[in-house]
Amino acid sequence: MTTDAEIRALDAADPLAPWRDRFDLPDGLIYLDGNSLGVLPKGVAERIGRTVADEWGRDLIRSWGSAGWFDLPLRVGDRIAPLIGAGPGEVAACDSTSVNLFKAVAAALSLRPDRRVIVSEAENFPTDNYILQGLAGLLGGYEIRYVPPGGDPADLLDPSVAALLLTHVNYRTAAQYDLAAVTAAAHQVGALTVWDLSHSTGAVPVDLTAAKADFAVGCSYKYLNGGPGAPAFIWAAPRHCDALRQPLSGWIGHAAPFAFDRDYRPAAGIRKMLCGTPPVLGLVALEAALAIWEGVEMTALRAKSLRLTELFMALVERECAGHGLKIVTPRDPARRGSHVSIACEHGYPVVQALIARGVIGDFRAPDLMRFGFTPLYLSYADVAQAVAHLADILNRQSWRDPGFAVRGAVT
Amino acid sequence: MTTDAEIRALDAADPLAPWRDRFDLPDGLIYLDGNSLGVLPKGVAERIGRTVADEWGRDLIRSWGSAGWFDLPLRVGDRIAPLIGAGPGEVAACDSTSVNLFKAVAAALSLRPDRRVIVSEAENFPTDNYILQGLAGLLGGYEIRYVPPGGDPADLLDPSVAALLLTHVNYRTAAQYDLAAVTAAAHQVGALTVWDLSHSTGAVPVDLTAAKADFAVGCSYKYLNGGPGAPAFIWAAPRHCDALRQPLSGWIGHAAPFAFDRDYRPAAGIRKMLCGTPPVLGLVALEAALAIWEGVEMTALRAKSLRLTELFMALVERECAGHGLKIVTPRDPARRGSHVSIACEHGYPVVQALIARGVIGDFRAPDLMRFGFTPLYLSYADVAQAVAHLADILNRQSWRDPGFAVRGAVT
Repeated sequence: MTTDAEIRALDAADPLAPWRDRFDLPDGLIYLDGNSLGVLPKGVAERIGRTVADEWGRDLIRSWGSAGWFDLPLRVGDRIAPLIGAGPGEVAACDSTSVNLFKAVAAALSLRPDRRVIVSEAENFPTDNYILQGLAGLLGGYEIRYVPPGGDPADLLDPSVAALLLTHVNYRTAAQYDLAAVTAAAHQVGALTVWDLSHSTGAVPVDLTAAKADFAVGCSYKYLNGGPGAPAFIWAAPRHCDALRQPLSGWIGHAAPFAFDRDYRPAAGIRKMLCGTPPVLGLVALEAALAIWEGVEMTALRAKSLRLTELFMALVERECAGHGLKIVTPRDPARRGSHVSIACEHGYPVVQALIARGVIGDFRAPDLMRFGFTPLYLSYADVAQAVAHLADILNRQSWRDPGFAVRGAVT
Repeated sequence: MTTDAEIRALDAADPLAPWRDRFDLPDGLIYLDGNSLGVLPKGVAERIGRTVADEWGRDLIRSWGSAGWFDLPLRVGDRIAPLIGAGPGEVAACDSTSVNLFKAVAAALSLRPDRRVIVSEAENFPTDNYILQGLAGLLGGYEIRYVPPGGDPADLLDPSVAALLLTHVNYRTAAQYDLAAVTAAAHQVGALTVWDLSHSTGAVPVDLTAAKADFAVGCSYKYLNGGPGAPAFIWAAPRHCDALRQPLSGWIGHAAPFAFDRDYRPAAGIRKMLCGTPPVLGLVALEAALAIWEGVEMTALRAKSLRLTELFMALVERECAGHGLKIVTPRDPARRGSHVSIACEHGYPVVQALIARGVIGDFRAPDLMRFGFTPLYLSYADVAQAVAHLADILNRQSWRDPGFAVRGAVT
């Protein structure tokens, strides 16, 4: 499936092709960085404009009630819930992924007060480990065990483990855990799971309920297209909500925030994970962005994601042979997320040369070129063109142009 | 100074009168709730629109560098710094006030590892106490002492006290602490101070540096007009930045966020207080809102604030006599913030009746009517009209209209 005609046929038969038109995708750009910052969905700018001009500008403080600002965290959470196999009222959109990680891990530890080990992995996204280190340092007496690169988390599990914190799809390699199997292994020793779904949500199917997972957090500015620094989300299995304690017990997580009591009493359900005043502008942008998902079949999304990444890898192998590239993303579809990473000695300037041609990927030290494939706005033709540019850059060695050697934008 | 002519003269001589025009204040509204949600400044809608359409929509991921998104927390902090007596590079705009309280108190405790008492006050804003309780509950072994209503924090200070957490201007009464004197009393026993400046910043002069304060946090959606749920801010005295530890150690507070190291190494200075990815939409709105402060003389601001609140109280006493109102805000200017609270048996429906007439105040249980006076967009005529409405409502008992008895917007 790699002739021009075959690629055109793939696009012609793509059930998700109509979605591209629902994004403000700049002309001439092949955007393979939706795993870092998703493209602006149509309707978002108007919604923010209305919130600023009318809700804030005209109705002012009254909008907390009349415009439903106060309900935003759970209302937005309800739009995320079906994408991760959570029920209505189970997800809250709030704070950053980092802050939500702190709450989720602390909550897990509160449910396993007699255990003193937390398992993560050496190659987890840095903030996941930094937050663990911050929490463990604050509490004292905890051991963090790191799964080594290529290792199996199950090997580090034993009855001393309170919590296992893993990112479902790895930010570098796109390697994907079997969420249900790892959760079951954790439960077998009585440990609880905290899943970081930042590189999964909106890209690969997730079913937290079926997997009997315990906690999850995730980012909404990647495949959910919520905008730069959009509020993150948090989920706790309903069976844990009564007993868990989380220390970021701000007033919005209180059972009666406007009673102005002196002492904290947690709200019921996921509301107890809320902390400070909801970031309204970020939440309305995210809510508008999530409207895009109406009618998206997750099986179709997953099928297209796998075809896009498979096509990309096949074309790279054919068109870029002899340049020493090494695909580090799993070829096994069951083990793969929605991006592809390629080790390349000159990865940094090559990515800069691609960006200069309007093919936007990113680079992760020391040598990874990373390309994200968002099924809602990418075509198979985009993939073929991106690889053609990559091959041309490698063949001409145009990445040696000193203009690309400068350190670019921090992404 | 309470005849119409005298009030007109006050407005005519007001050096801050030109600022009203820099806000999109709805016609016919007397907005006395800027202490809860500030009015939309002109220029903010355009700035957000540009960020959404151009920076996010067109430049996408590249805007982290090209549009300076990554610098937003400290760039915005630099605009807040002069309002609180902090130096450039000392303030970060990030997270919510609640989350920042957690960081600041945890940081203070990290500097006093051998002490196990935290002092707050019973009538602190609820989230301040809830966050303290969450942190103390997580750590175990801490005692929280509450200053009783009307009490003096100094009475609870002794060498076992690690940190003192107070709100500079009380959210209910507008009573203001002498920040320098209380800080000195805390230092005398070796305790550190955490000041919540939510009801101070942009309303009363604050000089953290002169007061030798230790930590401060605050809200930016009140007198800073940053918009609903705008990012909060945090300050730590530069002398503490090297030694302090704060547990919300997310990747944006790392010394090299894009090195993707496994282990956390804090950034220098206030950057170590940053946690997750900056909320760009909220930060650009706040940055645009802060442009309003260019050219504002803090002494003129304070003088007008005091004249507005004094005029309001004097008129209420004259026009509303006999209705059992009790002003709970200090009459002593040195002890007063920029709002006025009045106890009133029928406070809730009276405030609803005022709102129905376009005079926006708010209500705080059990019986407080609360009115905020923002010097940048209120006139003395506004104050006189607000009191005329209040007196008329009380005289006619029009608050008995059942239409006002329903529970209104949650504010």
